[in-house]
Amino acid sequence: MVATTHSKQFESIELESGVVLSPVSVAYETYGTLNADKSNTILVTHAFSGDAHAAGVDAEGQKGWWDNQIGPGKGFDTDKYFVICSNVLGGCKGSTGPSSINPATGERYAMTFPVITIGDMVTLQKMLIDSFGITRLLSVAGGSMGGMQVLEWAVRFPEAVASAIPIASTARHSAQQIAFNEVARQAIMADPDWADGNYYDKKPPGRGLAVARMVGHITYMSDESMRQKFGRRQREENGIFEVESYLRYRGSQFVDRFDANSYLFITKAMDMFDLANGAQSLVPVLAKSRTRYLIISFTSDWLYPSYQSLEIVSALRRRNQDVAYIELTSNYGHDAFLVEVDEQTELIRGFLARTMKEVAKK
Amino acid sequence: MVATTHSKQFESIELESGVVLSPVSVAYETYGTLNADKSNTILVTHAFSGDAHAAGVDAEGQKGWWDNQIGPGKGFDTDKYFVICSNVLGGCKGSTGPSSINPATGERYAMTFPVITIGDMVTLQKMLIDSFGITRLLSVAGGSMGGMQVLEWAVRFPEAVASAIPIASTARHSAQQIAFNEVARQAIMADPDWADGNYYDKKPPGRGLAVARMVGHITYMSDESMRQKFGRRQREENGIFEVESYLRYRGSQFVDRFDANSYLFITKAMDMFDLANGAQSLVPVLAKSRTRYLIISFTSDWLYPSYQSLEIVSALRRRNQDVAYIELTSNYGHDAFLVEVDEQTELIRGFLARTMKEVAKK
Repeated sequence: MVATTHSKQFESIELESGVVLSPVSVAYETYGTLNADKSNTILVTHAFSGDAHAAGVDAEGQKGWWDNQIGPGKGFDTDKYFVICSNVLGGCKGSTGPSSINPATGERYAMTFPVITIGDMVTLQKMLIDSFGITRLLSVAGGSMGGMQVLEWAVRFPEAVASAIPIASTARHSAQQIAFNEVARQAIMADPDWADGNYYDKKPPGRGLAVARMVGHITYMSDESMRQKFGRRQREENGIFEVESYLRYRGSQFVDRFDANSYLFITKAMDMFDLANGAQSLVPVLAKSRTRYLIISFTSDWLYPSYQSLEIVSALRRRNQDVAYIELTSNYGHDAFLVEVDEQTELIRGFLARTMKEVAKK
Repeated sequence: MVATTHSKQFESIELESGVVLSPVSVAYETYGTLNADKSNTILVTHAFSGDAHAAGVDAEGQKGWWDNQIGPGKGFDTDKYFVICSNVLGGCKGSTGPSSINPATGERYAMTFPVITIGDMVTLQKMLIDSFGITRLLSVAGGSMGGMQVLEWAVRFPEAVASAIPIASTARHSAQQIAFNEVARQAIMADPDWADGNYYDKKPPGRGLAVARMVGHITYMSDESMRQKFGRRQREENGIFEVESYLRYRGSQFVDRFDANSYLFITKAMDMFDLANGAQSLVPVLAKSRTRYLIISFTSDWLYPSYQSLEIVSALRRRNQDVAYIELTSNYGHDAFLVEVDEQTELIRGFLARTMKEVAKK
């Protein structure tokens, strides 16, 4: 399956802050075929550092980030469903973000880019979906920050979302999750090459961004998966621990593929996200949705621990809303949503088939 | 109780690497009175960023880091015991470390300071204890990196250690613990002000060191304690989350009191520490000790999780060695060993009293 990233431009988008960003582009890919009554669309939303390339192989031979779940016969079966994935607003993989040119100045936005929210990312996705003439999504699915977008879709556009699959996610960040993001932001901003965000024609803040990514990687893995993968093994040539060498490599590699200012804006959007908008209980806000839920979390995920998924599940059950919750056993930590294929595939396949039937009935 | 830090200089110390460091100073404090037969000494070993000032109030009005446990009537009762605490080799609080002047060059050691180990820290402590004419310690006690020194003492000098209290510690770092330290080191070295360690007459690498400390603070707390302390509360004046503001403050504050090169050398010593010296089992190495153990861990400590203490306990039990193990319930995470006073006091008091009786019998 060869994947091509497309781009769509809209005249403007009004953000939650009231700011109007104009124009705005969205990069996206689609897999499978839209059926005649446009009832088979699944929107896949990506995690923090993801992009529109969710499946198939692109021109550079790169597999999509959820290729093990999206394709013919897979969990999101492209023989049956039409799958769309777009790069988020604020990103650096084709959608408008801090590295885009501000037409008003002819310069990159950099830190003059407006504050964006998870809600704004969803607004842009809605514009994209509308442009296809699709009025209702069979499902919205995503892990981590992708799950936040899923939840936002379900409560903002209840009639447009038949089912929702938030995986390894939360309705709002805990203090610890905010703290890890803040350390990453401080690492970036501590790098003099960051230069208040104006590094685009110069050396990017590679050292700070690498440190930020290293912190991230620790939180994506589990104590157990790190033990299994690295243990206390040291490299023969220089005596450094393999885990150190791995983190340094992943950190430096990230610098070539991600924009530091996008890191700042997107992590801030995640931290600010609160489905309940400051309220303690999630019950009233989730009661707005008219959606069937499949919620998945993983035993060893300590970044987005199961209790955060359970909080959503409990709130849905209070109003007798349709929710299936599964905690899968995995050693992979938060990364499990990307790598634990088999059980997720089965769960997703069954859930989507049942949703398709329900949709057909109506 | 007013505390004064003293200093002792020795002609030289031979390190595990074979390198001889000369001269070498050790900063220390003592509390209580050494009894006539010199049988009532407790050596308290400090954690990573600690110092010799463990108890009482110093000239600047600063309380010792374990003042809640050391003093008249406290867990380490200075009415009964003679307590010694010294700054570790490689530190920056009076003992010889990277910021010390190398007499051979007249310059600071900086990165020419020799690689040091937990074993070397213990060697310097042994020299200090010997200088008091003390041949056997009633106890060696410490948390976190202090616990590593405790274990090292017990297996290196079995006849000199009547009892040992390693708290919230481990016989060797896991890949995850190494990873967090490595991120901190990379943050420091990424700061251009670090200048390969030669910053002493210039601006220190304050931004990098602050980021390193922020990472540390997250790992010292628990998800739950962060929720209780900060939740998602934001500061009115600027909208930033309280947890962000707290971490920034603690990070910047640390810069004034800790040396970045010491950070590098000491964390490396922790990561390299392996009581079993590469062997899988801890049984043979711990069998060398002739020591009674009180081992304590805390339920919410995810940096030094209970299973690491249990690994030591299991190994001791295999050879029927004398060990009491308690996992205390606490929400404070790794910080619990510093702040959970009551239960620890009771445990330590009873354990020391029984040890004193056993010692008197012999």
